[in-house]
Amino acid sequence: RQRPGSSAFLGSSSFYEKPERPKFDLATVYVSDAQYNRNIFFDTSPQAVRLYLLYNHWFMQTLVYAFIIVNLALALFEDPAVVPLPIWATSTIEIICLSAFSVRMVHYAKVIPKDKFWKDPKNICIIVVLSFIDLTMYGALKSTGYFALRWSRVLRPLLLVNVTEGRQLRRAFRSIRNALPQISYVFLLFMFSVLVFSLVALKLFGKRGLLTIDGSPYFTDYLDIVFDLYVLVTTANSPDVMMPAYNYSVFFTIFFILYIVINTYTFMSFFLAVVYSNYKKHLKEEVRQLVKARRFKMCRAFSLLQEARGEGGEPVVTQAKWNHLVKLVKPNISIAHRELLWSVLDDQNKGHIGKFAFVQLADLLSIQVITVKSQPHPIQIRFPSMYNSPVSRFIRYVVHQRMFVYVYDLIILVNAVFIGLDEENPVVSNAEWGFLALYMLEIILKLYATEPRAFFARHHFWNCRQILDIIFVLRVLRLVRLVDSIKRFRAIINILIKIGPTILTFGQLIVVVYYIFAMVGMELFKGKVQFFEPNSTSRDQEYCGNPLLKGTTFAKLNYCKNNFNNVISSFIVLLELTVVNQCGFTAVTHISARIFFVLFHIVVVIIIINIFVAFILEAFLVEYTIDKSDLQTSLEKKIEELELNVQQDGMDTGLVDAMESNDNELGPSEAGKQKPSLMFKIASRRSRTVDGLLQRMFETDIRPEDFNEEEEPENINFSNPVFDSV
Amino acid sequence: RQRPGSSAFLGSSSFYEKPERPKFDLATVYVSDAQYNRNIFFDTSPQAVRLYLLYNHWFMQTLVYAFIIVNLALALFEDPAVVPLPIWATSTIEIICLSAFSVRMVHYAKVIPKDKFWKDPKNICIIVVLSFIDLTMYGALKSTGYFALRWSRVLRPLLLVNVTEGRQLRRAFRSIRNALPQISYVFLLFMFSVLVFSLVALKLFGKRGLLTIDGSPYFTDYLDIVFDLYVLVTTANSPDVMMPAYNYSVFFTIFFILYIVINTYTFMSFFLAVVYSNYKKHLKEEVRQLVKARRFKMCRAFSLLQEARGEGGEPVVTQAKWNHLVKLVKPNISIAHRELLWSVLDDQNKGHIGKFAFVQLADLLSIQVITVKSQPHPIQIRFPSMYNSPVSRFIRYVVHQRMFVYVYDLIILVNAVFIGLDEENPVVSNAEWGFLALYMLEIILKLYATEPRAFFARHHFWNCRQILDIIFVLRVLRLVRLVDSIKRFRAIINILIKIGPTILTFGQLIVVVYYIFAMVGMELFKGKVQFFEPNSTSRDQEYCGNPLLKGTTFAKLNYCKNNFNNVISSFIVLLELTVVNQCGFTAVTHISARIFFVLFHIVVVIIIINIFVAFILEAFLVEYTIDKSDLQTSLEKKIEELELNVQQDGMDTGLVDAMESNDNELGPSEAGKQKPSLMFKIASRRSRTVDGLLQRMFETDIRPEDFNEEEEPENINFSNPVFDSV
Repeated sequence: RQRPGSSAFLGSSSFYEKPERPKFDLATVYVSDAQYNRNIFFDTSPQAVRLYLLYNHWFMQTLVYAFIIVNLALALFEDPAVVPLPIWATSTIEIICLSAFSVRMVHYAKVIPKDKFWKDPKNICIIVVLSFIDLTMYGALKSTGYFALRWSRVLRPLLLVNVTEGRQLRRAFRSIRNALPQISYVFLLFMFSVLVFSLVALKLFGKRGLLTIDGSPYFTDYLDIVFDLYVLVTTANSPDVMMPAYNYSVFFTIFFILYIVINTYTFMSFFLAVVYSNYKKHLKEEVRQLVKARRFKMCRAFSLLQEARGEGGEPVVTQAKWNHLVKLVKPNISIAHRELLWSVLDDQNKGHIGKFAFVQLADLLSIQVITVKSQPHPIQIRFPSMYNSPVSRFIRYVVHQRMFVYVYDLIILVNAVFIGLDEENPVVSNAEWGFLALYMLEIILKLYATEPRAFFARHHFWNCRQILDIIFVLRVLRLVRLVDSIKRFRAIINILIKIGPTILTFGQLIVVVYYIFAMVGMELFKGKVQFFEPNSTSRDQEYCGNPLLKGTTFAKLNYCKNNFNNVISSFIVLLELTVVNQCGFTAVTHISARIFFVLFHIVVVIIIINIFVAFILEAFLVEYTIDKSDLQTSLEKKIEELELNVQQDGMDTGLVDAMESNDNELGPSEAGKQKPSLMFKIASRRSRTVDGLLQRMFETDIRPEDFNEEEEPENINFSNPVFDSV
Repeated sequence: RQRPGSSAFLGSSSFYEKPERPKFDLATVYVSDAQYNRNIFFDTSPQAVRLYLLYNHWFMQTLVYAFIIVNLALALFEDPAVVPLPIWATSTIEIICLSAFSVRMVHYAKVIPKDKFWKDPKNICIIVVLSFIDLTMYGALKSTGYFALRWSRVLRPLLLVNVTEGRQLRRAFRSIRNALPQISYVFLLFMFSVLVFSLVALKLFGKRGLLTIDGSPYFTDYLDIVFDLYVLVTTANSPDVMMPAYNYSVFFTIFFILYIVINTYTFMSFFLAVVYSNYKKHLKEEVRQLVKARRFKMCRAFSLLQEARGEGGEPVVTQAKWNHLVKLVKPNISIAHRELLWSVLDDQNKGHIGKFAFVQLADLLSIQVITVKSQPHPIQIRFPSMYNSPVSRFIRYVVHQRMFVYVYDLIILVNAVFIGLDEENPVVSNAEWGFLALYMLEIILKLYATEPRAFFARHHFWNCRQILDIIFVLRVLRLVRLVDSIKRFRAIINILIKIGPTILTFGQLIVVVYYIFAMVGMELFKGKVQFFEPNSTSRDQEYCGNPLLKGTTFAKLNYCKNNFNNVISSFIVLLELTVVNQCGFTAVTHISARIFFVLFHIVVVIIIINIFVAFILEAFLVEYTIDKSDLQTSLEKKIEELELNVQQDGMDTGLVDAMESNDNELGPSEAGKQKPSLMFKIASRRSRTVDGLLQRMFETDIRPEDFNEEEEPENINFSNPVFDSV
């Protein structure tokens, strides 16, 4: 992926004289802001713009994330630690991290106007200041021997959200915030229902003297019943919670059936429905704002470079200026690619483009185009007679056949079966070498038959994987290739791949929430449950080192390693709680520790998981519809049209097909025809970003409004309305 | 609810001469078919029409359902039985039921044209015939001492689906059938993913000699791993399945985290997404067809009764004919209600209506209108001086105040707290009598202050409940009233109530599927697990009477009553499997019994529960949007407009408000104004049927096309396209 502004920062070739330089810098900033959907209200003075370019430099951004990761990773070394380090060491590292964030903030303050500074990054400043205070207090208290708590640790993951680059994460948090009022209404009603059912349960079962499997009285305490019925919603204690009543009389199951239908199924679906409807509603608005802001920035860039030269004196941008701008924005763009983009915009070959065409640049730049130079094979150059001999031609012909792919699919399948077989068997373990040889042969044959650069451009994905294949276990991933060759499955895999980047955003969201809960959980539960190595002789092993756990299911099932004794095991426990909310921990502390588990369930399962499901639902619905109608963005269509034109000018006829199908080979199979010197291929739609997917979701809705924005861009109040910090 | 055609069958007043009678019968059939969305291609000869009216008579329909229920209930008495009955008894009952279905089929054959007969009800015939064959074979084999199986029992619940009245259920099954191809693609990919993960797991863990908590080898057999990982998707064995690997090394959790993210979360969301998108797509089409068919039938009815009398000689229906038709369709409609409907249709008071107005009759009839006659209070008639005395007036004034409602809400809340308190306490148990007295006082006061008939019409819902209150436990349901008085919650409760009827359809669906699985399950597992009463002295109790269960978690947790020993416990086990798919049963039979549990999970959890969630999602989204914009159907609006007109003619000003708000009292509080003699109230939108809700969902989409249908109803090919049997 291209890093914007890098060459501008490092000082690129100054094709234009000095006075033009600041203009181009500013235009570059606008275009790359539009391309990456950055919405920062920066100062437009030349120094500020240069500082802003530096601020957005990929190295600086990477550095910030590195410091955040180091800061978060401190939990590994602080008490309760995985690898204990002395307090002075962790404190020093934390001070370095906090200083780095402070420096970044000072940099940010230099970039944006003074009056705007306190609006945006105030949260980071608060976090940094609070962390410093906490660190000082902790050091002071510890050195004087008092009890001290590192409470600011729960604030650390919030840096991930509040940092300038955490746009996606902030959007996810906004989704949650927007859905919160509606969720809370449904939640209150749900809790009301649980309370009423608990009351009924108390009346029904309280007096019957029933016993649970542990021998404790069954459903006699109101708060216990409320908790048990709440847990039933998570299905964690089903059917245990029902068994005593069911053993007493079959009619009591009616109560539980009603409860499950109403609370476990209906109310849980309501939560999803509320989250989904809110998600849909607000996302549309956000993407609309995003597109508006992008167009506005492009209009700004245009007005910086415009000249009155078109018919009727309307402002235009010349090709020379445009070329310079593109070089600044995307320094390592190939000339061919740049020419292609220009020809898309200036389709009448005027040598200059108007505002309407110019505005599309940001969209065009975000479409990944692979430039494939059609060159003769290196072997053909060195040993032409050998490469063109009948045997060689036959080999190349065979390799390009569909049957070749099928044969290797079959080999993969057979290999999978062999992997499943007993490895002790010498036949099986030797066969493994055979398979490895076959795969090597495949790569060599393909490299022989196809020009290496073209080969790597096309088989991009599979080659990365083939390298990974060397790692023993990942061999089975080859099987994915089998499934991918079936059209029906490919559509679903496409959705999976497209959802990938968003899953990363949700991953960050989960890390933020888990980290906070882990910090609190470690303070509450650390050391309460001990894990002993299986070969340990300690008799405490039976009850996880805590007499309170003697005879509990928790100890019996050997859950001792599910504890909050360090940050890693805390994360794993929290993951288990996400899947099934079982909470044996309440036994080792006060009963009010249940609040921790209920809170976790509400935040993670009811809210975050539902937002995740809502996203997948929407992505699936959109993708599914688009996949069927094969709708393309207007820009992709344009590129394709143009490529058709190029093709008519002498390129080989298989080109457009080749662009669409993965399996069609562009090599010497059509050697008879004149070879094109240059071919373009739109990178697979699979590699779309989240923003691209979202934008596509609402493309039809957004289109009509855009043109109005373009007509009068001055009227937009560019007040950064959606991208303020959470 | 009105039963259509009942008076027509019993022979109503023949206002028209003999020759007109068949016409009216046929028109009645068309209108009531349109009203109840029946799509049966009946013969239009006078005899067939009369037979068809009989066929649709509520008594016949009830009888059919009674026989179905008796037939299904036979499972209670057949081996393995809850209450064992001899084979001759159950067989006789079954033969009676089957004969009843046969008679019903013969009746149906007389109603519809001969050539259409075999298209529609063939499934019922097949079920009946197969049941007869099975019954005979079973009797013959049993009497000769051979082993015999009542395999036709799995067919019984299909009667519920195939019976003419099971429209909603057939629609649900069609939903499933339509989604099936898409589900199967995702399912295959999901299974592929599970298989690949299992292979990786085998390679990762197979050689390490890990042991599960039972001491058995961990992840060494491929098929076992596949099953364990499948169960992990249902979250039933989390975190147990992970613990041995986790105890060995923390890095192995990465495998499980990946698995859970991809399979448990992403793929399970995909299933929901596929089901939801299919549901949405096909439902729209079905409702469109439904509306088309309805309009077409109304056009038919119109053409039967039309006369050329309008301006330009266009066909119209006179008020007299229309009145007669309405009386036939809805015999116990009040004259006032009928007049109201007529005035809605004939808003220019012409005395006749055109086709466009006539067609709306079916829709109008399905809107429940409550006619409230404003009469003086019975006490006022008997003791006018007492009723109008200052004290009496003050009481009536107080009762009609909002504060009166609030005071009783508070009393209910206090009562709820008392219910939760210890009943042994004499204060608490005596307070109960006090509360009962207060509730009685409330009813008496309200009956005193409001004319009894008006009171019951308005407080419809709560009075039913107040009677139920007498039953001890249901007292707490009074609390629902508290929540219902808060606007935000009322919207959600509205959705809950509207979803109610559909939950009944899903209930039937669940019964059909559960019944089939219960029959199969009973054959597979009956008697394998025994339940012993808690005070039993048998030592078998420890392991549920099956030595194979010795020391298993199943026996330890005392799940013995979770067995397939009779149809009731089978249903309960299946419910538990729906919530959490834990399957201890595989221990008592062959390992292949797992197929039963996996199949059940696929059918019930992946398909049916997702369809349920999809329905709730859609219902919530539609309801939520409508509730905000307060969109009304055009018909409701018309009635309201008309009522406004009536109001201007002398009704009291609070009428329209009263129609909308539940709390506004229409009684003597506005005694100063002239009392209207008659008031209409549109029954709360809460009591809409499923069809109504569905129709509303796509109302905006359907509207434009309807008018085309009306212009040329002859062009519709009335081939019953959507309502063929499953």
